[in-house]
Amino acid sequence: MDNKTMRASVLLGKGRLAVEERDIPVPDADQVLVKVAAVGVCGSDVHYYREGRIGDFVVDQPMILGHEASGVIVAVGSAVSPERVGQRVSIEPQRPCGHCRECRAGAYNLCSSIEFYATPPIDGAFCQYVLIQAPYAFPIPDDMSDEAAALCEPLSVAITTMRKAHIVPGSSILIAGAGPIGIICAQTARAFGAAEIIVTDLVPEKRERALSFGATRVIDPVAEDVTTLGLDVNAFVDATGAESAVYSGIKCIRPLGTAVLVGMGKPDMVLPVSQIANLEISVTGIFRYVDTWPTAIHLVSSGQVDLDSLVTKKFDLDHVEEALNSDRDPMNLKSIVCPN
Amino acid sequence: MDNKTMRASVLLGKGRLAVEERDIPVPDADQVLVKVAAVGVCGSDVHYYREGRIGDFVVDQPMILGHEASGVIVAVGSAVSPERVGQRVSIEPQRPCGHCRECRAGAYNLCSSIEFYATPPIDGAFCQYVLIQAPYAFPIPDDMSDEAAALCEPLSVAITTMRKAHIVPGSSILIAGAGPIGIICAQTARAFGAAEIIVTDLVPEKRERALSFGATRVIDPVAEDVTTLGLDVNAFVDATGAESAVYSGIKCIRPLGTAVLVGMGKPDMVLPVSQIANLEISVTGIFRYVDTWPTAIHLVSSGQVDLDSLVTKKFDLDHVEEALNSDRDPMNLKSIVCPN
Amino acid sequence: MDNKTMRASVLLGKGRLAVEERDIPVPDADQVLVKVAAVGVCGSDVHYYREGRIGDFVVDQPMILGHEASGVIVAVGSAVSPERVGQRVSIEPQRPCGHCRECRAGAYNLCSSIEFYATPPIDGAFCQYVLIQAPYAFPIPDDMSDEAAALCEPLSVAITTMRKAHIVPGSSILIAGAGPIGIICAQTARAFGAAEIIVTDLVPEKRERALSFGATRVIDPVAEDVTTLGLDVNAFVDATGAESAVYSGIKCIRPLGTAVLVGMGKPDMVLPVSQIANLEISVTGIFRYVDTWPTAIHLVSSGQVDLDSLVTKKFDLDHVEEALNSDRDPMNLKSIVCPN
Amino acid sequence: MDNKTMRASVLLGKGRLAVEERDIPVPDADQVLVKVAAVGVCGSDVHYYREGRIGDFVVDQPMILGHEASGVIVAVGSAVSPERVGQRVSIEPQRPCGHCRECRAGAYNLCSSIEFYATPPIDGAFCQYVLIQAPYAFPIPDDMSDEAAALCEPLSVAITTMRKAHIVPGSSILIAGAGPIGIICAQTARAFGAAEIIVTDLVPEKRERALSFGATRVIDPVAEDVTTLGLDVNAFVDATGAESAVYSGIKCIRPLGTAVLVGMGKPDMVLPVSQIANLEISVTGIFRYVDTWPTAIHLVSSGQVDLDSLVTKKFDLDHVEEALNSDRDPMNLKSIVCPN
Repeated sequence: MDNKTMRASVLLGKGRLAVEERDIPVPDADQVLVKVAAVGVCGSDVHYYREGRIGDFVVDQPMILGHEASGVIVAVGSAVSPERVGQRVSIEPQRPCGHCRECRAGAYNLCSSIEFYATPPIDGAFCQYVLIQAPYAFPIPDDMSDEAAALCEPLSVAITTMRKAHIVPGSSILIAGAGPIGIICAQTARAFGAAEIIVTDLVPEKRERALSFGATRVIDPVAEDVTTLGLDVNAFVDATGAESAVYSGIKCIRPLGTAVLVGMGKPDMVLPVSQIANLEISVTGIFRYVDTWPTAIHLVSSGQVDLDSLVTKKFDLDHVEEALNSDRDPMNLKSIVCPN
Repeated sequence: MDNKTMRASVLLGKGRLAVEERDIPVPDADQVLVKVAAVGVCGSDVHYYREGRIGDFVVDQPMILGHEASGVIVAVGSAVSPERVGQRVSIEPQRPCGHCRECRAGAYNLCSSIEFYATPPIDGAFCQYVLIQAPYAFPIPDDMSDEAAALCEPLSVAITTMRKAHIVPGSSILIAGAGPIGIICAQTARAFGAAEIIVTDLVPEKRERALSFGATRVIDPVAEDVTTLGLDVNAFVDATGAESAVYSGIKCIRPLGTAVLVGMGKPDMVLPVSQIANLEISVTGIFRYVDTWPTAIHLVSSGQVDLDSLVTKKFDLDHVEEALNSDRDPMNLKSIVCPN
Repeated sequence: MDNKTMRASVLLGKGRLAVEERDIPVPDADQVLVKVAAVGVCGSDVHYYREGRIGDFVVDQPMILGHEASGVIVAVGSAVSPERVGQRVSIEPQRPCGHCRECRAGAYNLCSSIEFYATPPIDGAFCQYVLIQAPYAFPIPDDMSDEAAALCEPLSVAITTMRKAHIVPGSSILIAGAGPIGIICAQTARAFGAAEIIVTDLVPEKRERALSFGATRVIDPVAEDVTTLGLDVNAFVDATGAESAVYSGIKCIRPLGTAVLVGMGKPDMVLPVSQIANLEISVTGIFRYVDTWPTAIHLVSSGQVDLDSLVTKKFDLDHVEEALNSDRDPMNLKSIVCPN
Repeated sequence: MDNKTMRASVLLGKGRLAVEERDIPVPDADQVLVKVAAVGVCGSDVHYYREGRIGDFVVDQPMILGHEASGVIVAVGSAVSPERVGQRVSIEPQRPCGHCRECRAGAYNLCSSIEFYATPPIDGAFCQYVLIQAPYAFPIPDDMSDEAAALCEPLSVAITTMRKAHIVPGSSILIAGAGPIGIICAQTARAFGAAEIIVTDLVPEKRERALSFGATRVIDPVAEDVTTLGLDVNAFVDATGAESAVYSGIKCIRPLGTAVLVGMGKPDMVLPVSQIANLEISVTGIFRYVDTWPTAIHLVSSGQVDLDSLVTKKFDLDHVEEALNSDRDPMNLKSIVCPN
């Protein structure tokens, strides 16, 4: 660590990015400093870039985007074993307090004072070095790629979804949307033992692609009304954020089944509440994840989930804007920023 | 059992009731014959009477209403112990198959071939004698009134609601609506240990009454916007069926909390899905009950739930129509039909 | 169905078997008659044969053994669709009442009046035809063998074990014993997503074989003290019935983990209760199964569990005694009786 | 805070106590300094005093005993609101790391690096001032006594026990032992809704006393064999540590019920494993508590649990030895040390 500064891609305001020189941060006692290897581009990064906000979270000062990150530990705080220097790690990009009501209840994702990468005002990982609390930097096997290690973050979203959806061996699941989250969910559903994995998408190529990532059946929701097909699934996962998909998806759930809303769309939606009540369906959603990284790393290293094949394009720090705009290609799955 | 026939109040069609002479039914091997003592009037009875249907359930042949029933066993089937004759019982008015997918999973309320009193085409209990499978006729203590025994049915709805709402000692709960179900839910929440039981209702007298049935706080939802009061409850129960109550109630739930929709209203409603997802709230409903009678009888006989005080008026078989119309008094809680 | 009688292998008393001519039973309204194709030999069959009893269950009248059965439906009761005739089925060999306290609670395996194949005084399946309630005869795919269909019964034991052991993707599990149940549990643990599947057995060849059925590591419990290896597993499953295996297995469980006792041994055993309390471990066991057949059929038909390779030998009805004694070969896994 | 030193009762070694002058500790940023009002004497304090160790925990340097503590906040760390000075609080005497595997899973009581009052080498509360992390000092209502606030600690043990025992309205529970934990468990079982609370104890006066603290029935386990009484309870709680009580208690549990081992006795015990397996009983134990203080404070302040009546005697710092020896009176329930 000779150098004292690093390069960072900074969101200055709505639609304005600049590469800046920043001081390399110094780890607190319980932190590690990670030289960033790969960072996935997430829809939330794109949203902050284009809109300058997500709901109540407003970017009102310069902020570094990026929260799906991997790298190698290059320095450690005083309370961390120096043997960790050199470890390749996947980063769980959150810092819960560990002691509030939600943390105490085992729901640290809902910590009332959480700090999360690339959520105002906390900086993210589109830069050369980042800090993270030592227990949130998870060592990865040698044969796991930097990109896959970064994508353990969206995989954690999918793992949380499958847990909430109560997917067990033999379950059936309907997933609306064959974008990145839908595709990772399909793979994760398979790893959780789902027997039927039905994926809907408007785009024929995306439906086709879903079949190679775990879907056992794909449906064009325009050509067919899913509510008339007798799907009778244990769980429905929405990865579109589209009201019509949510509404019709819930209608396909069997008694006592579960709907998990993952896609972000309108804050309010019309839902079939009589159906929910009469079949005792549970409708819920997810907010990040709790205790998923060990599972994520296992699913990837055992080959049950393939994250490398999701990587569509790679960019360096000078091309973060292009990375953020790569979603204009409907077939794009995951763009990766490699800051070093 | 000298007589062979009995009197029954029969719903002939929308808005048309008549007292008819019917054969007293003969128990199958696994059934008991109950001489009906008391039958509570439920909103669903009123709905069938006024509309001739509830959703897909249509009264297209004469049907006896009433499903909240108690009485005394006067005859038993060949496989039932004759010692049961003379027992005073509370009736769980459903007959699940016991062997379908839902029954096997312990959710016999969702049995695909269930028969339920006063749900077309199954007759109910506004008559002098009814049959029920022996295990669904629960003996009651001597000091429990016939009316309380009948009202173990709506109490079972409340017990199911508290289970679904995960009410445990120290929980906080918001209940929308201080009608019969809201009032029984408030009492049951108290019995389940809820520390805060907040009840909303438009009518001042109903709010006042709620305070004597377990509510620790009452709110006029017109005068105050409940979403601005920092209620932060573990659970919300809707007992109104009103979309605005459901929407604002869900907004009052803390992270990981639960909404249980009990009131029947529009089949579709606008819900705050972002809130649901971001706080990982679960929204669900209930459909009847599973395995609640022993708990109901305990709550009543131990004095933790007072059902007798809910009884507003009593009617005989010739005045079922008046009983059904007694909901026109907004302060009416429970009308009881006494067929014998 | 021209013939009126069938051949059956009957246990006359401790150690005494005879093939007898019996009337082919006639299905009740809710039953199907199955022409038996394959029946697995279970340790409990052997125990009844050798000892004439298992605990309080005493064979005090002639009884047909065998409860792991498959076949083809040849006749149906009046309430069953005649279209089921000709279906190949796997039999769940139990008849719960569907309405007692345990059935109502979704634990029909613990039904207080259950009837179970080959448990006194109920006859089993070492005969040409058997009756079973229609919902307990599960259709199987064309490409599933009769033997695999029969072995869905021990697979159901393993599925129940994995459910009780809370095995999810990424779990670690220690299984004591590489006999039939240990081997099926290892495969099922893999299907449930276990990352580490550690199997112990005294016999080198059985350890070796376990590696081909899902074990990721095998240990000789004589050569190595498992409690000193830092195994730190989520769950321990005993498939030996040996007190030392149970005691040391529990010592290998991490905080909040689970021990599931499947093997049958002494009725009382010394357990490390301080360890259980200090680590909040749960120790439980299983008694048959609830709602496992759909999962079992899925695991087999998807190739995740291989039951065909477990079949060591086949016997006809005249050689049931040899089938029961085939456990004298320590490498024997599953003997199958083919009554027709 | 003019004074810089305080008085503390220090355990110098097995059986040797001395009052010493110690520096008043200074709060870290996240801590509060509490002037101790009342400290309950626990069996573990007595055990350390008499034996110098509990299992692997050895008192090998001077240590202050006492972990059931209440007091008033007199100073706060830099990160804590100064408004908390003056608050009367009940102390949860543990400091989990908040980020290890167990903490992340919501089981911070099992934190691998936990620090706990009066567990070597961490000092406890038999002294005038103690430090605790701010979120673990729970404000209490004005009308709660210092003694009751201190006894929220053993009440937390009972709350954890009832949670683990799955006690809900209508449950039946058998509690072995009518000492302090048994008595608090009986009260807590009642608060959780248990319908039947059966307590066993060898001493007639203790059985009698149990009836005034929630027991609905008491049994002399010498005069009657509890396993022959058809108790059929949902849960059994051992608060004796006696092997015979544990063994026979488990024999009284119904199918799918739970045994929770709370009393500390021999590290190994003979348990009825066939019973456990055949009835699918779960046997577990507890280790301290997670997230219980809000519930404890509610149960006390609502009058559902009476802790004040448990206080048998009070002692000052100079008479800690007498306090520790007060268990020689079999009717002693809770001795309290008041250090100021």
